[in-house]
Amino acid sequence: MPLDRRDFLTGSTLLAAASLTGIARAAPDDPVTFPPIDAPSEKPKGPPPQPRAPSSRKGYAVVGLGRIALEQVLPAFGESKDAKLVALVSGHADKANKIAAQHGVSPKAIYDYKNFDSIKDNPEIDAVYIALPNAMHAELTVRAAQAGKHVLCEKPMATSAADAQKMVDACAKANKKLMIAYRMQYEPMTSYAKKLVRDKALGMIKVIEGHNGQHLGSTLDQFRLKKGGGAMIDVGIYCLNTARFLLGEEPHWVQAAMYSTPNDKRWREVEETVVWSMGFPSGTIGNFSTTFGAHQGRRWRAYGDKGGWVGMDPAFSYNGLELRINQVRGKEEILEKPEIEQKQHFALELDHFAQCMASDKQPYTKGEEGVQDMKIIEAIFQSARDGKRVELPKITKLDAFRGSAPA
Amino acid sequence: MPLDRRDFLTGSTLLAAASLTGIARAAPDDPVTFPPIDAPSEKPKGPPPQPRAPSSRKGYAVVGLGRIALEQVLPAFGESKDAKLVALVSGHADKANKIAAQHGVSPKAIYDYKNFDSIKDNPEIDAVYIALPNAMHAELTVRAAQAGKHVLCEKPMATSAADAQKMVDACAKANKKLMIAYRMQYEPMTSYAKKLVRDKALGMIKVIEGHNGQHLGSTLDQFRLKKGGGAMIDVGIYCLNTARFLLGEEPHWVQAAMYSTPNDKRWREVEETVVWSMGFPSGTIGNFSTTFGAHQGRRWRAYGDKGGWVGMDPAFSYNGLELRINQVRGKEEILEKPEIEQKQHFALELDHFAQCMASDKQPYTKGEEGVQDMKIIEAIFQSARDGKRVELPKITKLDAFRGSAPA
Amino acid sequence: MPLDRRDFLTGSTLLAAASLTGIARAAPDDPVTFPPIDAPSEKPKGPPPQPRAPSSRKGYAVVGLGRIALEQVLPAFGESKDAKLVALVSGHADKANKIAAQHGVSPKAIYDYKNFDSIKDNPEIDAVYIALPNAMHAELTVRAAQAGKHVLCEKPMATSAADAQKMVDACAKANKKLMIAYRMQYEPMTSYAKKLVRDKALGMIKVIEGHNGQHLGSTLDQFRLKKGGGAMIDVGIYCLNTARFLLGEEPHWVQAAMYSTPNDKRWREVEETVVWSMGFPSGTIGNFSTTFGAHQGRRWRAYGDKGGWVGMDPAFSYNGLELRINQVRGKEEILEKPEIEQKQHFALELDHFAQCMASDKQPYTKGEEGVQDMKIIEAIFQSARDGKRVELPKITKLDAFRGSAPA
Amino acid sequence: MPLDRRDFLTGSTLLAAASLTGIARAAPDDPVTFPPIDAPSEKPKGPPPQPRAPSSRKGYAVVGLGRIALEQVLPAFGESKDAKLVALVSGHADKANKIAAQHGVSPKAIYDYKNFDSIKDNPEIDAVYIALPNAMHAELTVRAAQAGKHVLCEKPMATSAADAQKMVDACAKANKKLMIAYRMQYEPMTSYAKKLVRDKALGMIKVIEGHNGQHLGSTLDQFRLKKGGGAMIDVGIYCLNTARFLLGEEPHWVQAAMYSTPNDKRWREVEETVVWSMGFPSGTIGNFSTTFGAHQGRRWRAYGDKGGWVGMDPAFSYNGLELRINQVRGKEEILEKPEIEQKQHFALELDHFAQCMASDKQPYTKGEEGVQDMKIIEAIFQSARDGKRVELPKITKLDAFRGSAPA
Repeated sequence: MPLDRRDFLTGSTLLAAASLTGIARAAPDDPVTFPPIDAPSEKPKGPPPQPRAPSSRKGYAVVGLGRIALEQVLPAFGESKDAKLVALVSGHADKANKIAAQHGVSPKAIYDYKNFDSIKDNPEIDAVYIALPNAMHAELTVRAAQAGKHVLCEKPMATSAADAQKMVDACAKANKKLMIAYRMQYEPMTSYAKKLVRDKALGMIKVIEGHNGQHLGSTLDQFRLKKGGGAMIDVGIYCLNTARFLLGEEPHWVQAAMYSTPNDKRWREVEETVVWSMGFPSGTIGNFSTTFGAHQGRRWRAYGDKGGWVGMDPAFSYNGLELRINQVRGKEEILEKPEIEQKQHFALELDHFAQCMASDKQPYTKGEEGVQDMKIIEAIFQSARDGKRVELPKITKLDAFRGSAPA
Repeated sequence: MPLDRRDFLTGSTLLAAASLTGIARAAPDDPVTFPPIDAPSEKPKGPPPQPRAPSSRKGYAVVGLGRIALEQVLPAFGESKDAKLVALVSGHADKANKIAAQHGVSPKAIYDYKNFDSIKDNPEIDAVYIALPNAMHAELTVRAAQAGKHVLCEKPMATSAADAQKMVDACAKANKKLMIAYRMQYEPMTSYAKKLVRDKALGMIKVIEGHNGQHLGSTLDQFRLKKGGGAMIDVGIYCLNTARFLLGEEPHWVQAAMYSTPNDKRWREVEETVVWSMGFPSGTIGNFSTTFGAHQGRRWRAYGDKGGWVGMDPAFSYNGLELRINQVRGKEEILEKPEIEQKQHFALELDHFAQCMASDKQPYTKGEEGVQDMKIIEAIFQSARDGKRVELPKITKLDAFRGSAPA
Repeated sequence: MPLDRRDFLTGSTLLAAASLTGIARAAPDDPVTFPPIDAPSEKPKGPPPQPRAPSSRKGYAVVGLGRIALEQVLPAFGESKDAKLVALVSGHADKANKIAAQHGVSPKAIYDYKNFDSIKDNPEIDAVYIALPNAMHAELTVRAAQAGKHVLCEKPMATSAADAQKMVDACAKANKKLMIAYRMQYEPMTSYAKKLVRDKALGMIKVIEGHNGQHLGSTLDQFRLKKGGGAMIDVGIYCLNTARFLLGEEPHWVQAAMYSTPNDKRWREVEETVVWSMGFPSGTIGNFSTTFGAHQGRRWRAYGDKGGWVGMDPAFSYNGLELRINQVRGKEEILEKPEIEQKQHFALELDHFAQCMASDKQPYTKGEEGVQDMKIIEAIFQSARDGKRVELPKITKLDAFRGSAPA
Repeated sequence: MPLDRRDFLTGSTLLAAASLTGIARAAPDDPVTFPPIDAPSEKPKGPPPQPRAPSSRKGYAVVGLGRIALEQVLPAFGESKDAKLVALVSGHADKANKIAAQHGVSPKAIYDYKNFDSIKDNPEIDAVYIALPNAMHAELTVRAAQAGKHVLCEKPMATSAADAQKMVDACAKANKKLMIAYRMQYEPMTSYAKKLVRDKALGMIKVIEGHNGQHLGSTLDQFRLKKGGGAMIDVGIYCLNTARFLLGEEPHWVQAAMYSTPNDKRWREVEETVVWSMGFPSGTIGNFSTTFGAHQGRRWRAYGDKGGWVGMDPAFSYNGLELRINQVRGKEEILEKPEIEQKQHFALELDHFAQCMASDKQPYTKGEEGVQDMKIIEAIFQSARDGKRVELPKITKLDAFRGSAPA
């Protein structure tokens, strides 16, 4: 004999619901909600997740099945609300088949780089996610756009500003959207920090400094050690892009130095370490370092002129991020750690781009955002080569290269 | 003209792979691997995730669509490697339909509590996940077993030891597996701590103390404030179960006190605060508190007799857990924070139980594990009522009520 | 040729000072101050320290030259502003002479326990600091009072409530002040926490829990392992006294359990581990543990019913203390670490007691405060022996046993 | 009737001591010691402090009675073991008299800048501590040496390398010792880090980066905002000097940029912000920033090539320092916080210099160490002005400018 279920607490929006017929469509504008569990003095909880029905999600083809694809991008679909995996592209049929089986991708939706352009005939594919080595980004982005697909491309967007611009142009010509996968511009802690900075909660930021480093081994054929790789473009770019994101400004000068340990085979094609500083129009000075030659460390901190700083340590990592704010409150100096729930960064990106497709908006980190990083990086390399400061155009518009901010 | 892709670093197991035909079956014993990126002095990385193909995963019906189901259990399937969602059970058709659409569950696989027993006719359902209010666990577990399904049931297993035993008996009689969802016994940080304790890395644990509290609001019809709820059985159980898990031992006495603020309507059916101590056979003393009346706090710490302690703060939460070890190394006292990647707890449980079904093993936290907690909780209540120590049977076997440890 | 010194920034109170004659007397009511260095948005700095001239400080004789005297009390005079060391009392002339030389104490001001009572003839001695083993506190306190000296006595005040009361009575009869050295009631972080609790900044405290443990070796003749020692009275007392201090209330019931590892020689005279809970009149429940058998750990946390908790970890130590506050601010849950400068605890005590002597006030932790702890500890032992809750008188007055709060 | 005191545990070196006559001289080579309290698995404790008898300590005159003197240097004598305060030098008689009374300095031992040279007639003064504004260091150091006194001078040693060299020459000529007050080279945590770096416990340091900033207000006549002040020389010097200390190497190139907010009166004579990088002979790259225009922040981190980094945050402060080490241990990445007791930095300096006088050794941070910083700072300013890298002599000797390391 079943229990009386009148005491089973259910979704509040359903309390008045009488109709028991028909299948409700998953619609974020009619969310399931619950009455509060906790006392009003506790941190408020939002509604439960409202994933979009699979049939109305945007379909992605993942291009390239290296570490980042298998470890981050493919798992991200499981945490996404608006995206689904519908195709794979790989030069290795055996691997592609194995991965397709693991993820329930149809064998018919496996492509290689020869038949890649035939993705245009697969209406399930709305967009591609380019997870290839840096040097292949430009070509595949252009081909995808020409095949009529939107493109979400890993950072660094390309290995030169010229290639990056070609990608933007090709997508524009094909009337397709292009987004660069700058995770930090979607990640909740960095976004929280950005809001503090933009709201001038700590005053104006006078100095922002940081480091991003990783210690590469001597697997010499990995793309990070090949032309188009290197510490600056591959990991230093996080410092550069995050500083630009936090401030919303563009540097108008850079000054840099570079070092590679002599006779170390890893640095035959790429540099080991870069340090650089940047000046921003409002007067903020940035100072950063990046390396491929020392133990991993990822951090930044921005110092304001109204009694506080904000920083992350670790920053930039896939997980384990920590945000700290140090500020004067009354007569106290307080180090604060806000509790901010971590999200899978790639899922946030997949969803933002899916929403941009659905609502026909420019992604927040559109192609131009990536072009700008490439131009600055080229100036950094020039400064390091010449041992002299390099001037850049002074751009006064805020968020000059960004599209629509994520919700 | 495509790039030469010979420099595209790929899965090492594939380097010699010539066959481009046939579809590889997703098989964890033939994983995709990659050559190392980082220097050998860096923390080693494992292979990428190897999810099982959807067709060979175990199918679950989720029973009850409250907060825990929508916020934790349903999202967990996106992070699971061995489990899939195939059915929903709810007393609210409207909500069930909406959720089914969001998660791609067939409308035909939606059940309510009247037709629940017909799940026996759905071969896609291997197991049910009972995510109902405590007082409904027993009934639905028994009915699920009778319908020929394995059962993964939320903690607390039931609202009395007698009911808990009935659940074990019903599953045994039906030859079905029963697992209790003790997340902490699968979560990586708590497991890391358990290994330290079991290996006696800090010596023998002499004292373990902790707290688990949450501040409930006055939504009086929530099940936590109804008979069968209360701080001890709902959240205090984490302290109790984690202590038993860490030590592998069973308490042979308990002593407790209880307090509820007078004239507060929340405590008409359940208690507000319980404090209790426990003695374990090897001499460890446990000391814990739990409350529903104060700001959330979740922690424990175990002190060894060989120069160290280990603890978590926060412990027990769905995310944001932190592990600390304090120990003497040489002449130094060092506070250590190991970097341990967090996993979605419910996905770990779904996978463990799926693996138990696949390999016909008893789950680590099988039904008997839950019965034991219920017996101890009843002794705690008795001690609190009488103001006197209560003796329990002295059990000397380690892990007396656990099944096969997760891989 | 000397520099022009007009640009040498000096004390602002002196800017208008013309008189260059006469010797200013060190007077805290005419402090040296400086103009601010930092921007107004930075944490404000107070004036520099204003120590009292040596000739007007209160003179102390330190009684007992064990670890606590040499490591903490004697160095504290170097950081004190109102106290000075003028005499030593020890049963070991050789050690006393050595220490006297190190600290500039006259050989004539060295006493032993036979001639101790002749301190009455030394007008330099205003007070004694009793730093002896617990079992000797009562006798020396009584003799000091009879010799006309004020007494600052280490905790635990005595080894029984009866002895403690005798000490209070002897000092009252001799019209001398008696202070118990409860460091935590003077230490800035604990005091900061106390203010939060008393101001109800986190609401009402519903639960306070903590632990204080230390791992003693088998130097069996140390007083902590002798009758009158033991974990509860020697270190558990910190939990007990700090809870009473934070709340300002007195427990009206206790419930306890005790454990000592069998056949371990250390526990022949004293207990190893005690766990206990306490109920306070306003409804706060305390739950604590203490041990002499496991790695050092010292902590407490108090959970309020208005969105926050406050705690220390480490607590109770001579240095390295850390305070944390977790609270909801707006929609955020924030873990806060206020920057609070640490002070030498014993110097704070010496100065408070010196100020009490100078202004004829009762010290904040006067003798009665210590008597109350002894009564509660006796109830804890009784409860542990009987396995039953023990009731205590219900005292409703706040700070019932304290004197004048430190400035 | 006195207690039997046979059970009063005393100094072990005294157990066999029979002689009760004569006054032992305070001698660090015959220390008072105690038997261990704690279990052998606990962190070992050293002997209690062994201060030198006042009569055999070195006497200091403190020159300049600004904030640093009153807040740090004068209190340091209370925590010193080998130094004592015997004289004061100030241009403000009123303030000097007040401070002298507070600290028990004889009115006869108060000097001003006119009669300063008569300190040569005061045999109690062994050394002077120069706590004046930067621009006055050179003159007073030279005059002190000529008066036959050793000199402990605050950092920055002077406002130019030329002045700094004059100070070294004057002291050499007078056969007097000169020490620069680089606190970090004596402070225990920084020294712990230095040992790790020198022992290559984390491999070779490839990158070291840091920041030291403070937010000055608009008290425009403070010396930090006057010629000879500025962020680089006053606080940036900590980054520079600490990097040199940790590595033991000297930079052979620097590259810098500078920024001051236009129209802010604070930056009329000095700069607001400097960022600079440095190359060291073994290949380490340093990258640092300093400012007087943003919220205080003080930190550094050094990244090794064998699986670890070490850093401090806060670094450089008078107190509240924290050391962290992140390293791979086995298969784990562990963030470590060693428990290192903080010491009063100025007391450590006073004692080191006193020991150097007593044993006729060159202080660890002798004058040449300060000259080298001044040379590098001048190169940094030159680079910032020219926007170009500046080369410095390549010095291959380790610790090229340091004297005898502290014990």
